[in-house]
Amino acid sequence: MTTLLYEGKSKRMYETGDPFVLKVEYKDEVTAKNGSRHDFAPGKGRLNNLITSNIFERLEAAGIPSHFIETTGEATQIVRRVDMIPMEIVVRNLAAGDITNRLGFKKGEEFAPPLIEFFLKDDALHDPLINRAHAIHMKIATHDEIDELKKRANQINVALLDIMEPMGLKLADFKIEFGRDRKGNILLADEISPDTCRIWDAATGENFDKDVYREGTGSVVDAYQKFYEKMEEIK
Amino acid sequence: MTTLLYEGKSKRMYETGDPFVLKVEYKDEVTAKNGSRHDFAPGKGRLNNLITSNIFERLEAAGIPSHFIETTGEATQIVRRVDMIPMEIVVRNLAAGDITNRLGFKKGEEFAPPLIEFFLKDDALHDPLINRAHAIHMKIATHDEIDELKKRANQINVALLDIMEPMGLKLADFKIEFGRDRKGNILLADEISPDTCRIWDAATGENFDKDVYREGTGSVVDAYQKFYEKMEEIK
Repeated sequence: MTTLLYEGKSKRMYETGDPFVLKVEYKDEVTAKNGSRHDFAPGKGRLNNLITSNIFERLEAAGIPSHFIETTGEATQIVRRVDMIPMEIVVRNLAAGDITNRLGFKKGEEFAPPLIEFFLKDDALHDPLINRAHAIHMKIATHDEIDELKKRANQINVALLDIMEPMGLKLADFKIEFGRDRKGNILLADEISPDTCRIWDAATGENFDKDVYREGTGSVVDAYQKFYEKMEEIK
Repeated sequence: MTTLLYEGKSKRMYETGDPFVLKVEYKDEVTAKNGSRHDFAPGKGRLNNLITSNIFERLEAAGIPSHFIETTGEATQIVRRVDMIPMEIVVRNLAAGDITNRLGFKKGEEFAPPLIEFFLKDDALHDPLINRAHAIHMKIATHDEIDELKKRANQINVALLDIMEPMGLKLADFKIEFGRDRKGNILLADEISPDTCRIWDAATGENFDKDVYREGTGSVVDAYQKFYEKMEEIK
């Protein structure tokens, strides 16, 4: 009844009794550098499940459809089954992370309009940057679908900024993934959590994201807990 | 009167008496791996000068403007002075070289339509791939200029295929660079030669390009000489 379908770095996906519904279980694990660093982080699964659920509900209310159906437990949620589009779409408001090394931008440099990048999901190739022509040649998405993905990415950015600004936070960047349901509709999928965003305190610059782990500056669970509490306050 | 303005891996640029005209001298040197491999190749400068001159003349006749004015010696030509746009534009008809490692394409895989890639010219960053949004943010080119550059790149590809097909050759890929003249007009610049193309014999797969040097399969000057002779035959 709950056959494990897929286990990733931070989540397990199970089949359910309904062929169109999957159960997602968020793991208490934290990884970096494509999985080469790996630690246990008790409580992280619960926080990312609750945060993703909360964000996907708010996005739904803002007219942005996702695979999310409902939270079913502390670390579990059920979602619509989709065929994942094998791209990581990164939206950047402020330069941070790998782009500062890759293209020489200064940390904190503002992108206006926000910068959108596509990365091929391929661990063996280290998730390389791709352009529209690559994606079309690889039959990952059509020209029109890429326009649609960019439009959604921008809408999600606006909605996330609307959530985070009242929390006193800056959203430097985030990564999203999409899938197609059985009718071919594109839905936001995967997660949006401090694992997949860079979130800075607008006043102090404090991180509420996985950079706490990447850079070893504190407890990732404490940082995510603080973020979750801030988000609950502005409900 | 002939002040050295710039020396690159394979060419020297000199000022002339005319502020809008530069002299280009092609060097008898061959490099690979961003200059970390370096050898002398007597006769290569002459061949690349004559080949580039010949190709730029044919492109001009096909309605594609370039910086080229005229050949002035065995290894020299004069060109219109332009401000270079710091991007390498690569057009690919068949997969070869770094893209096979970077994105996992099979050598010889066909791109239809041809694939266009932009790389930032920045030795320190190892000429990274960039997308349209990066180029616009970096103020390298406007949205409309990028459309124009892509259009030109496709036109140049068609014209080069028209030159090489009667020579019994396949054009796998090539790299071009553009500049702006003092009125802001975009002109094809730099060179188009076996240094900047991958050219395969349609029947045997023999290389007539710098892969002969990169892969150590023969004399680069002999290969370029053969290519030049083939091109002269179909004049």
